[in-house]
Amino acid sequence: MPLPDLARQIAAGDRRALARAITLAESTLAGDRARATVLFDALPKGREALRIGLTGTPGVGKSTFIEAFGLMLTGSGLRVAVLAVDPSSARTGGSILGDKTRMERLARDPHAFIRPSPSQTRLGGIARRSREVVALCEAAGFDVILVETVGVGQSETMVAGISDIFVLLMAPAGGDELQGVKRGIMELADLILVNKADGDLLPAATRTCAEYAGALRLIRPRGGDAPGFPKASMISALTGAGLEAVWQDIQTLAQHRRASGHWAQNRAAQAQDWFLEEVRHGLLARLETPDAQASLKALSSEVAAGRMTAPAAAEAFLTGSSAPSSAFAGDDRS
Amino acid sequence: MPLPDLARQIAAGDRRALARAITLAESTLAGDRARATVLFDALPKGREALRIGLTGTPGVGKSTFIEAFGLMLTGSGLRVAVLAVDPSSARTGGSILGDKTRMERLARDPHAFIRPSPSQTRLGGIARRSREVVALCEAAGFDVILVETVGVGQSETMVAGISDIFVLLMAPAGGDELQGVKRGIMELADLILVNKADGDLLPAATRTCAEYAGALRLIRPRGGDAPGFPKASMISALTGAGLEAVWQDIQTLAQHRRASGHWAQNRAAQAQDWFLEEVRHGLLARLETPDAQASLKALSSEVAAGRMTAPAAAEAFLTGSSAPSSAFAGDDRS
Repeated sequence: MPLPDLARQIAAGDRRALARAITLAESTLAGDRARATVLFDALPKGREALRIGLTGTPGVGKSTFIEAFGLMLTGSGLRVAVLAVDPSSARTGGSILGDKTRMERLARDPHAFIRPSPSQTRLGGIARRSREVVALCEAAGFDVILVETVGVGQSETMVAGISDIFVLLMAPAGGDELQGVKRGIMELADLILVNKADGDLLPAATRTCAEYAGALRLIRPRGGDAPGFPKASMISALTGAGLEAVWQDIQTLAQHRRASGHWAQNRAAQAQDWFLEEVRHGLLARLETPDAQASLKALSSEVAAGRMTAPAAAEAFLTGSSAPSSAFAGDDRS
Repeated sequence: MPLPDLARQIAAGDRRALARAITLAESTLAGDRARATVLFDALPKGREALRIGLTGTPGVGKSTFIEAFGLMLTGSGLRVAVLAVDPSSARTGGSILGDKTRMERLARDPHAFIRPSPSQTRLGGIARRSREVVALCEAAGFDVILVETVGVGQSETMVAGISDIFVLLMAPAGGDELQGVKRGIMELADLILVNKADGDLLPAATRTCAEYAGALRLIRPRGGDAPGFPKASMISALTGAGLEAVWQDIQTLAQHRRASGHWAQNRAAQAQDWFLEEVRHGLLARLETPDAQASLKALSSEVAAGRMTAPAAAEAFLTGSSAPSSAFAGDDRS
């Protein structure tokens, strides 16, 4: 299908067209990368979803929260996309097979779209694809995009870097466990939600929520915060208690940031980060062409045999004195 | 001074020449990088030190160990270089001011050379400089190079990647704490040394050492291991107990690896890694030239304003359709 047609179908809300575009964006073939760039250019501009980043350790009830929160949103007429970013599952080569089964009702909802983590081995690759999938879902007219991560390595920072609002989901805990939250993650959070505030765990959730509220007061104010944010709240994904209030909070914060200009600044900065990532990636991709690989292999043998130093071999490669410089002079794109 | 002269002075063991060369290698100026490459080419080939990587958390007695072990080696006529790799001190901008004061006697030893961590902000930069400093110390004729890290982030893996033998220094601990050692680090270790096996801590050290020995038996054999390795031993850096045995173990393992060919293979693989790092770094360095920076800035503004998508802007940059392609076609080197 010609790419402009695919772009039109995505814009019209065709889910199969969206899925095809995501597959194209996740492809690592050079030709597909060029096609993806053309596709992005053909997409409608100016459509903005509310991008909510979500993190929390396994067992905290993320899936239950996403299902309950997502169904509440679709129930009020909103279209919701859910994207998982899970470097750990990528690392073991496994898929989040459970992504659709663990959110069974949401997966069947015609107003929801669930996309598991791309099977990339490096976080850099995941970051890149995730940005593109978010952009595609935005062009497809979703109102809310939930980007979820289990928080391996730098994945929270990455997800925060493609979100408008960042939510940290926590379980009720003893006072000592509070220390376990990485300070950097606390500083990313706009909302801390203490889940499982129901039944026996309600007292512990109440205490934990107060502790997080106290911890948040120690964090210096950031640009773009509405009064009272960052904020800690109690919810029960199981009973649905507190979910309406969370949605209100998110809208309040989004509204404040839009009015103050912080929203647009943040979006612009994110787009610029994306651009620089693409440039770096495109530059390094030149090492993957057959010509470059052949040249690298030959020089690498010289280095292994001790006939050239590593810096001298790198210099030879980069100045093209040992290989057709075309391999990394920019004319290798199909 | 002409670089061939500097190379000759380094080879002759001139410490001031070595220090100047390290400063040159640590410089990020483009002209200095080119000079460093020429210098490496002029250095004598074939001089090999025994490179010992050393890690251990703060408080485990690393400085005491390095001083005692280093003095033992210099006392037997060997020349010893000590390099610190500490991403955490680099991050805070602070130097390991203590490097020389905490190893006061070794620092005054004419057969020892102590170099603190380079003040680079990213681990990638530290890795690169550390390789070069190791290569310079090798050319300067040091017999043993101790590369020390406190183990922040990936620094242990990086240090293991520039070492012939990797040593993990531990403190006596309760059984539960054994769990705290990252499995990946255990798998890197050739020797686990339980320090502070003296006085009151001797029983705990004995038990801890037995536990590590047990844990090491669960690790599958790796290529290049001599019988009985990886190995856990007790030492006291304070009294010097066990240090002679550690040196014997290191020599046994080194001898075994030289004889089996593992040593040469490992060295060749490390040189090839270095080469690829230099290539990647050199490619990305093209983004730092004034021409490239101007072009990136202009395109970044288009992206921020929403007039171009990030992939399209990256494409424009990489194909040179928005800037002189010379900025990243390889002729920007001085």
